[in-house]
Amino acid sequence: MLEDLREEVLDANLALARHGLAALTWGNVSGIDRERGLVVIKPSGVPYDSMRGEHLAVVDLDGRVVEGSLRPSSDTATHLVLYRAFPELGGVVHTHSTWATAFAQAERDVPLLGTTHADLAPRSVPIARRLLPEEIEASYEESTGEILVEAVGSATTEEVPAVLAPGHGPFAWGTSASDALEKAVTLEEVAKMALLTLFLRPDAPLLDPAVRDKHFLRKHGPGAYYGQHRDHGIGGHAPKDASGGEAR
Amino acid sequence: MLEDLREEVLDANLALARHGLAALTWGNVSGIDRERGLVVIKPSGVPYDSMRGEHLAVVDLDGRVVEGSLRPSSDTATHLVLYRAFPELGGVVHTHSTWATAFAQAERDVPLLGTTHADLAPRSVPIARRLLPEEIEASYEESTGEILVEAVGSATTEEVPAVLAPGHGPFAWGTSASDALEKAVTLEEVAKMALLTLFLRPDAPLLDPAVRDKHFLRKHGPGAYYGQHRDHGIGGHAPKDASGGEAR
Amino acid sequence: MLEDLREEVLDANLALARHGLAALTWGNVSGIDRERGLVVIKPSGVPYDSMRGEHLAVVDLDGRVVEGSLRPSSDTATHLVLYRAFPELGGVVHTHSTWATAFAQAERDVPLLGTTHADLAPRSVPIARRLLPEEIEASYEESTGEILVEAVGSATTEEVPAVLAPGHGPFAWGTSASDALEKAVTLEEVAKMALLTLFLRPDAPLLDPAVRDKHFLRKHGPGAYYGQHRDHGIGGHAPKDASGGEAR
Amino acid sequence: MLEDLREEVLDANLALARHGLAALTWGNVSGIDRERGLVVIKPSGVPYDSMRGEHLAVVDLDGRVVEGSLRPSSDTATHLVLYRAFPELGGVVHTHSTWATAFAQAERDVPLLGTTHADLAPRSVPIARRLLPEEIEASYEESTGEILVEAVGSATTEEVPAVLAPGHGPFAWGTSASDALEKAVTLEEVAKMALLTLFLRPDAPLLDPAVRDKHFLRKHGPGAYYGQHRDHGIGGHAPKDASGGEAR
Repeated sequence: MLEDLREEVLDANLALARHGLAALTWGNVSGIDRERGLVVIKPSGVPYDSMRGEHLAVVDLDGRVVEGSLRPSSDTATHLVLYRAFPELGGVVHTHSTWATAFAQAERDVPLLGTTHADLAPRSVPIARRLLPEEIEASYEESTGEILVEAVGSATTEEVPAVLAPGHGPFAWGTSASDALEKAVTLEEVAKMALLTLFLRPDAPLLDPAVRDKHFLRKHGPGAYYGQHRDHGIGGHAPKDASGGEAR
Repeated sequence: MLEDLREEVLDANLALARHGLAALTWGNVSGIDRERGLVVIKPSGVPYDSMRGEHLAVVDLDGRVVEGSLRPSSDTATHLVLYRAFPELGGVVHTHSTWATAFAQAERDVPLLGTTHADLAPRSVPIARRLLPEEIEASYEESTGEILVEAVGSATTEEVPAVLAPGHGPFAWGTSASDALEKAVTLEEVAKMALLTLFLRPDAPLLDPAVRDKHFLRKHGPGAYYGQHRDHGIGGHAPKDASGGEAR
Repeated sequence: MLEDLREEVLDANLALARHGLAALTWGNVSGIDRERGLVVIKPSGVPYDSMRGEHLAVVDLDGRVVEGSLRPSSDTATHLVLYRAFPELGGVVHTHSTWATAFAQAERDVPLLGTTHADLAPRSVPIARRLLPEEIEASYEESTGEILVEAVGSATTEEVPAVLAPGHGPFAWGTSASDALEKAVTLEEVAKMALLTLFLRPDAPLLDPAVRDKHFLRKHGPGAYYGQHRDHGIGGHAPKDASGGEAR
Repeated sequence: MLEDLREEVLDANLALARHGLAALTWGNVSGIDRERGLVVIKPSGVPYDSMRGEHLAVVDLDGRVVEGSLRPSSDTATHLVLYRAFPELGGVVHTHSTWATAFAQAERDVPLLGTTHADLAPRSVPIARRLLPEEIEASYEESTGEILVEAVGSATTEEVPAVLAPGHGPFAWGTSASDALEKAVTLEEVAKMALLTLFLRPDAPLLDPAVRDKHFLRKHGPGAYYGQHRDHGIGGHAPKDASGGEAR
């Protein structure tokens, strides 16, 4: 079982580069085995082209390394805060992807301007608050996780599948490492479209709420009607955990 | 015959990713066999890298699945409205390609600023009207097709080979699936050029109508003089259905 | 000999796509054999992936097809005007490359803002005048060549290695097809840098004339001191016709 | 030993194209063997695809060619000034990478707007002063090195790992050729993010100094805690000379 998780997490880490979300080895993906309470995460500072499943670090929810001899990503504490706060999460992705990071550096939400965004989430992708001096000093990575949790607030993690850390970059999550990866890929594209839209029309209107809900709900929740049934051979995923995005 | 159509539609769907028009599996292409009244279209939510010809859905013009066990794209109803309204269409493409979608989100036409655009169409690529609440509620995908048809209006589908759905993205069409794909690829490039031109000069002039007509008519209609004669071995297509764009 | 020219022109045409200068089959490259007075040029509307040396068209300086059964590019007349006006030219390239075309559509020169531009040319890349109605009507492609020649004016083709046709796109030239290709690749990059510079600073200063001349002259003319001596085995080109750009 | 250095320098030169930092053969990388006082650098005007280790030029710190028959890069004198001024440098990279060059042409520092930048350097990437007429005339390449050294000023080369030559482009350096390459890749990405951020918010705030120091110091200096220990098999580098960037 952990072998499967290692494989999925490795694939998702390598996919960061393939999707253009990470220059060099920036960015990290983790996945969790909820039954065992173990998180598999990218090791710190290992180049993608020499990374193999056995190099991934395995930590428990308190951050203790339980397997592997390589140091886990320096962002591990941030991932763990998210897993502890949201039991439904199966995977977490952090990147410095270019366009989403521009919004993070401008300390602006990514506004919901179109159906590509609505397929991802029914609201803007929020910017978290800045860290306080004492948070930076005492527990930088852990506090980063806490401001992300705060930004989700009373919403669900399906409604807020990503948050921007101010001056830093996006964190995204989902029901699995590959689902979280899909959220991160979509966010980057949505951020790029939003910036270009704002160039064409600085006062671009938010998407009509009725269209927004139509798109979000045809993909998420009990009434979803895109994708294939879970018991199907090809693709073979229920709408909820579809890893392939959609034929929107 | 349907095998050939399946092959062409599959190729065009895979080409979306190759031309950078679709992240993940966003976007869909269909093609029609007019004699049999059957439409071949991408299945919903199947990743490109495992998609094969046999996975494509076959529906009739009323949307009934007549072959294949996979659910067709959730946008199928939109494609069918276009095929019913315009008997000359052989293929339809829908994407969320980045630059064209920025115009769709800004609810702006793509203005005709240069000969690249004139090679595609002799007028701006229009933005459709917004959907009414009752249209969104009762028949979202079908109504999306209807606002596209409205936007074509009294023009021909050769004069208006693409329309932007507001807050959504572009739909393009042509005499075949591969011709529709070429229109979608050209539109994305034209939209990018237009946005960059507007940056350099917000009041950029529309292309001289005489140059516009020269370019459109050297590629379209009876006086066209680019491309090779249909009976030629290489490339082997008449101007009208040339799949390879042109040496403009 | 013509075999070598065919090979070089074919390679340069294929390189357009590889350098991102041409979506689909837009763009065309030609080369001339001055002794025989014959021009080898891309055929019209043939997809790159099926194009071979034998498909290229061969025309004389009056445009008569002397070899090959495929129709030459519809822009052939423009190339021929350039070859007739400037006996030193060995190759011509026409593209609709994105960033240079944005300047063409905005009807703006590409200003000389940096040394990358100065390595290409010692002055801005000019926009040609618009065509007159009678020029468009009677001899569109030939007149396009004439406004390019006008824009070069009393300068040399080394000083003005490219001109933008307004509302259309760039034409570039050089001592050979591959040299012309290098000019077109450099122009596209220079146009992109210029646009981004103008975003950062709308009143960006022109490059210091002393630095401009230093860069242009270390690469062009009798005092050039970059590249390898012609008689060297590797690369093996004199500064003047270096096809590989430089380690500026 | 010089074989290893040749290999590393060759790899770093080829990586310029792979990372999109150099169209054609623009850009050059060098590395130094401090014990022997010898610098290995890219030859002038040799295309990447035919470049092999034996083509690299070897010069001493005064610029005398001591090995190889190819002319060294025309920017060699600039590299040598840097090696003489800063004994800790092991590698130098010069590019005309698009986004960093836009800042150079706009004669603007790249402001420190986010943690991606802070991972690279704890301050803005400065623009050097313009060259004086007599400097351009008498010793262009050497004087270019001198304005870079001036721009570092009293800071360390770790604090200022890159400087923009005005109207020209970036120079970056590090403890080795591959470390310098990593700095150049990061700078380009940081410059792109900064420009996009300035679009979204022209008065974008500088990164909180506490976050800035946290990021810089978790990667640089004695308290660094990312990456793997030097004696580890995989990756096998101490934080200081990690070539792979980080899982920030």
